[in-house]
Amino acid sequence: MIVGIIGLGLIGGSMAIDLKRRGFAQTILGVENDPVNSEAALKMGLADEVLPLEDCVRRSDIIVVAVPVGAAVKMLPMILDMFTQEGYEGKIVIDTCSTKSQIVRSVHYHPMRGRYVATHPMAGTEYSGPWAAMPNLFDGRACIFANSEESSPQAVKVVEEMYDVLNMRPIFMNADSHDVHTAYVSHISHVTSFALALTVLDKEQDEKHIFDLASGGFSSTVRLAKSSSDMWVPILTQNRDNVLHVIDTYLDKMKEFREAIANYDEEKIRDLIHEANRIKKILR
Amino acid sequence: MIVGIIGLGLIGGSMAIDLKRRGFAQTILGVENDPVNSEAALKMGLADEVLPLEDCVRRSDIIVVAVPVGAAVKMLPMILDMFTQEGYEGKIVIDTCSTKSQIVRSVHYHPMRGRYVATHPMAGTEYSGPWAAMPNLFDGRACIFANSEESSPQAVKVVEEMYDVLNMRPIFMNADSHDVHTAYVSHISHVTSFALALTVLDKEQDEKHIFDLASGGFSSTVRLAKSSSDMWVPILTQNRDNVLHVIDTYLDKMKEFREAIANYDEEKIRDLIHEANRIKKILR
Repeated sequence: MIVGIIGLGLIGGSMAIDLKRRGFAQTILGVENDPVNSEAALKMGLADEVLPLEDCVRRSDIIVVAVPVGAAVKMLPMILDMFTQEGYEGKIVIDTCSTKSQIVRSVHYHPMRGRYVATHPMAGTEYSGPWAAMPNLFDGRACIFANSEESSPQAVKVVEEMYDVLNMRPIFMNADSHDVHTAYVSHISHVTSFALALTVLDKEQDEKHIFDLASGGFSSTVRLAKSSSDMWVPILTQNRDNVLHVIDTYLDKMKEFREAIANYDEEKIRDLIHEANRIKKILR
Repeated sequence: MIVGIIGLGLIGGSMAIDLKRRGFAQTILGVENDPVNSEAALKMGLADEVLPLEDCVRRSDIIVVAVPVGAAVKMLPMILDMFTQEGYEGKIVIDTCSTKSQIVRSVHYHPMRGRYVATHPMAGTEYSGPWAAMPNLFDGRACIFANSEESSPQAVKVVEEMYDVLNMRPIFMNADSHDVHTAYVSHISHVTSFALALTVLDKEQDEKHIFDLASGGFSSTVRLAKSSSDMWVPILTQNRDNVLHVIDTYLDKMKEFREAIANYDEEKIRDLIHEANRIKKILR
């Protein structure tokens, strides 16, 4: 199998590593617009070749679109357009983006829609670029297949096999439901981390040594604030309505806490913490 | 040296392990009100004996008060009262609490004030109880000495030696400044994690499988929501004014984000994320 990967960053690069060494891909063809990233990806051996998009699509059996969702939404219809050409039969394209409703809508009526499989491998770190790529990133995590009934069963089967090689658990759901879920378990965490970083960085203006005191708990909570704007600006705007809804619920909870603390209401603070502690049963 | 540790939980228990095996303490005497914890601590070898508070103070050279700050504020004057007795000369008491202003104020005029050293070892995890105690917890972290000019130089010297054995970097500051700093780099992180847990747990009522999708980022952000109410209720109320101030700054940042997302203002979202990304330079 020849796998073409558009975007050799954290997700694309990590896929490249495991698909190649686990034997699913004989060849990895990469597309990378940024020349610095491109050189790094080749040096690191993430791809056998880096080449223009058109050549990559022409020569690959599966094309993985692993770029920020704003760019992916523009790229996907172009790739499906190429699939109408002779000699492109049987090719499959997938994306790996963190929001699914808009991208799935964008090609809903495309004649080649069946050859596209919308996926979201739920794995990552706060780092980006080819340097962030790592082996085993996906092992044991969930991979969402969104609106898979719009894809051909044959295409879904091949993509399932690919994610099986990455040791991911497939979960099937519709794109809208996916975007609600990820607003809760991923997008809000990023917004709260960004806001926390901004809060403490503001204070640093006056207190140069404030970070000397930061312990592991702070680092953990603020870790996602290192995440790249290229990735997160389109996620937050594409999933605007869901994200706003979760932010509003979250702000209500913060205000409840604030009021309890303001009133020295120990009973209420204790109740809120006990309720929050239920997270223990859920997280490993 | 005989070290008495009141409260053989995460902090007290971890101190016991390293002070003993690194040779600073020949004997660890423990005080533990909870019989289950007491039995566990003995089984785990955290203390050589568990005994009543009075006996522990009488027999120890250094007494470490490692209980939630609400209890510590009541206990500390009692221990200093005991120091006025004959045969108690040279004993030192320290606390390890996360808020310092109130506890330091509570004994400011005590005739034995010099024999108390207010400290805050900035280390921990989200777990509590003797089961949470672990070796090397403090290595490389900062330890705050608050208002150390109110302690006798001799007492400070002994306590510095003790924290040196725990491989901690001493930082000297006044108690009020400590409480401002910790509101920023520790207390707010706990409140945001609790609120995040509450937000997602609410949603779980309707969506049983929402946590199937939670990735490492979510776990990291919400980790502190496992923290115990016994520890956090008194911290949040004792440090009320600072915590409220930081919560308000934080709410402003959240609202700025909310507005930018609501307006699809990609420029503004990008700016906020870039600004938050500065945290990269600060956190390892």
